Amino acid sequence: MSSTAASVSSSSSSPDSDFIGRSVVTLDDLTTEQIALLLRKAAYIDSHRREVAHACDGRIIATLFYEPSTRTRLSFETAMLRLGGQVIGFAGAQLASVSKGESIADTLKTVANFVDVVAIRHPKEGAALVASEAVDIPVINAGDGGHMHPTQTLADLCTMQSRFGRINDLTIGLCGDLTFGRTVHSLIETLCRFGNVNFVLISPDELKTPRYVIDRIRETPSCSYVEVKDLVSVIGDLDVLYMTRVQKERFFNEDDYLRLRDTYILNEDKLRLARKDMAVLHPLPRVNEISVEVDADPRAAYFEQVKNGMLMRMALESSVLGDDLPGFDPNKKEVAA
Amino acid sequence: MSSTAASVSSSSSSPDSDFIGRSVVTLDDLTTEQIALLLRKAAYIDSHRREVAHACDGRIIATLFYEPSTRTRLSFETAMLRLGGQVIGFAGAQLASVSKGESIADTLKTVANFVDVVAIRHPKEGAALVASEAVDIPVINAGDGGHMHPTQTLADLCTMQSRFGRINDLTIGLCGDLTFGRTVHSLIETLCRFGNVNFVLISPDELKTPRYVIDRIRETPSCSYVEVKDLVSVIGDLDVLYMTRVQKERFFNEDDYLRLRDTYILNEDKLRLARKDMAVLHPLPRVNEISVEVDADPRAAYFEQVKNGMLMRMALESSVLGDDLPGFDPNKKEVAA
Amino acid sequence: MSSTAASVSSSSSSPDSDFIGRSVVTLDDLTTEQIALLLRKAAYIDSHRREVAHACDGRIIATLFYEPSTRTRLSFETAMLRLGGQVIGFAGAQLASVSKGESIADTLKTVANFVDVVAIRHPKEGAALVASEAVDIPVINAGDGGHMHPTQTLADLCTMQSRFGRINDLTIGLCGDLTFGRTVHSLIETLCRFGNVNFVLISPDELKTPRYVIDRIRETPSCSYVEVKDLVSVIGDLDVLYMTRVQKERFFNEDDYLRLRDTYILNEDKLRLARKDMAVLHPLPRVNEISVEVDADPRAAYFEQVKNGMLMRMALESSVLGDDLPGFDPNKKEVAA
Repeated sequence: MSSTAASVSSSSSSPDSDFIGRSVVTLDDLTTEQIALLLRKAAYIDSHRREVAHACDGRIIATLFYEPSTRTRLSFETAMLRLGGQVIGFAGAQLASVSKGESIADTLKTVANFVDVVAIRHPKEGAALVASEAVDIPVINAGDGGHMHPTQTLADLCTMQSRFGRINDLTIGLCGDLTFGRTVHSLIETLCRFGNVNFVLISPDELKTPRYVIDRIRETPSCSYVEVKDLVSVIGDLDVLYMTRVQKERFFNEDDYLRLRDTYILNEDKLRLARKDMAVLHPLPRVNEISVEVDADPRAAYFEQVKNGMLMRMALESSVLGDDLPGFDPNKKEVAA
Repeated sequence: MSSTAASVSSSSSSPDSDFIGRSVVTLDDLTTEQIALLLRKAAYIDSHRREVAHACDGRIIATLFYEPSTRTRLSFETAMLRLGGQVIGFAGAQLASVSKGESIADTLKTVANFVDVVAIRHPKEGAALVASEAVDIPVINAGDGGHMHPTQTLADLCTMQSRFGRINDLTIGLCGDLTFGRTVHSLIETLCRFGNVNFVLISPDELKTPRYVIDRIRETPSCSYVEVKDLVSVIGDLDVLYMTRVQKERFFNEDDYLRLRDTYILNEDKLRLARKDMAVLHPLPRVNEISVEVDADPRAAYFEQVKNGMLMRMALESSVLGDDLPGFDPNKKEVAA
Repeated sequence: MSSTAASVSSSSSSPDSDFIGRSVVTLDDLTTEQIALLLRKAAYIDSHRREVAHACDGRIIATLFYEPSTRTRLSFETAMLRLGGQVIGFAGAQLASVSKGESIADTLKTVANFVDVVAIRHPKEGAALVASEAVDIPVINAGDGGHMHPTQTLADLCTMQSRFGRINDLTIGLCGDLTFGRTVHSLIETLCRFGNVNFVLISPDELKTPRYVIDRIRETPSCSYVEVKDLVSVIGDLDVLYMTRVQKERFFNEDDYLRLRDTYILNEDKLRLARKDMAVLHPLPRVNEISVEVDADPRAAYFEQVKNGMLMRMALESSVLGDDLPGFDPNKKEVAA
């Protein structure tokens, strides 16, 4: 089948009005219709920058970053600024006074007097949920512990949608550390909700995909998977290659690491075996798992992915605030950019 | 008597025009008329958010926080953003280069080239005064050492005004650490300027109100006070209960601390003895001196107090900048919200 | 000769259109015509604040400060805000996640998805060049290592232009540490490009001007120089006195330092020997090399210099963005303020 993600949303309910005031701790807080709506909004925003430049005039977002994550923070902040809103917040070292024994709930109840929406990053699992339950304004999880980082997955989906005009009917390779990479698990689970994806799981034995993620694929009749150790042997089959970093400290001994390392580095040699329209994704930052020489290849989509993350955050922020995007028709399918 | 704070301002001079360019290091820098004017402006702002959203267009505030105080910084920043202005500044760890041997006066003379108004927080007493004397633009003290924090007191007054329509003719209990709590001293002194307040000073012997504060009440014929050790015995008499934290390290021995601690914790049991319209204030952050169960009680006013702090900072920032609030009549008494 | 810097720009090419998208790593990235154009723009901006307040509406600058430099950061940020644009960024301690092994090039490729222009400060020489080569958007060097800091020199030039209506046909004394003071070297080299300057180089033997800088003056027929050790003997000849700090740690022994220190401190006594219209400049922060008593003297131009730095950054940011300043005629000579 070739129905696009966008087509899922042609329903009778109103995913747009259901968005208002909604917190997003995990992507389970959104229906597939709402995710599809965000994808259409992101495409619209990208081609209508001026039209949406005042959609959130008078709004303020608080970026409460209890641990530094500069890329994510700047993305949330830029998203609000590009919609006409403003930003307050703290990042890492500035937070001393916040942690003066104050609970997350109290900090949120305080900040809710200042702003219209919150993006929170916290090293502890569950912090974003606690935050969202403390206040009535929408709270967006910008990453909590090793747990969830829903807007990264939205960025990934948006990049596939923008490259292929769909997020299903694709063969998607995920390569590297599939055990500890939370972005990989979240992406697989979300793609299974849309269905019709073939997963190619490429990792060393030490870093295989966890059982519960595999089970998620198995429970989805329209999805399939294979597990392999070798990138080169499968790269030619892929529409998408999602690279992740293989960290040395994950291995029992250095010999194993050194033996495997090069297998999971994407360079021009390996890329020669891939399809002409394959898209290479990576959640960034990369260390050396994608050679710099690949950046100039049109298949490299990982910096585009950063832009798409910002677009999806613009779509999400304006949606939970209930701010319309001037000229956007929520019921109309946008043609992919 | 039942004259409200607002009524004090019906004078022939112009407290509004006298505000322009004025620095506020302590509340003694403002007349009671000006404080009353700020209370009326805050009430107006709260009910006319859209009207005032561009009152400070083109203005910039610098938040120079030589020590972190996230709550206060975000309040000053939000206040300016909600008036249409912008923000620059530093907070704690970012200030390394400022302190490269540079005097506060030189930093202020530098920053005065960038901005229209400054909010300064500094660990040393007197720093805000030095700052205000170095430049011609208005400087607002956002807390210096254990000394003064005038906008916290403005937030407290605004909360009483908003709950009772007045800041006098009230019985106000202050509970906990009355020796070291600077917010308590500043609040008492300021309320004495308006007069007609009955203070109930609730603390252990170790943490009683200092002599000079007691003297301030005694010098005010229309004010009275009692000192008690027990919250429960007096809570039924109070219009306002201002809670503060009792820090373990203030006590000579742990036994005293453990014996007294629970006496000064506000919970639902104690609240059952209080009036239905009593207002519970707290400068925040709290640790455990107010149980979380109290938050849902309509008498809990401490998160409202955060909002009122922002409103008073909006009133103060626009006043010292000489920026009119569209539609606001400085001579008209606003009906309390 | 008495031609002004401004007159240099009466050429047939278009320095303004050549600016668009240009990165400024060193001042060699700009023609003398373009520098003269920036000086005219800064003068125009200073007297037309309202007219230019929306010149960069919808633009965002990223201030990427890998080491703290609060003065410079706030200047770049204010410049963009005063033009109607917005700011994102990090400063020092916030950057932990950026440095998670990520290259400067990757950070720039990421941030380029968010903003329209970047100002970068980095402790390593060459970092700004690497940054500028990684992306298509303009990158402005806000200081890299002991190397280059072009906008400081622009601030210096603007201050001379504003005080004298020209940046040549002047006798310019540079006093203090002429060996390690990068601002001094950059200023001399840039003034040589405009020509017709007499340099008076005032320093102890230990801190003389480096050979390559002296050679730069020698290669310029219209410029001359003398090297002296004593400020008092030459101060009466100077149009401009550019003071720098003499750091104790630059000397071989403390005796030398103590003997020389007072010679290079500017105070009222020394100032009595100077011309009535001499201008005292200093890149700031000062420690004690200019007595505080001098601040009130009309010849003190060092806080003005801070303002001029902001004006030149406004001129530079709008120019590289290709944003016109409403009402400004690039071909018309502004009369100096």
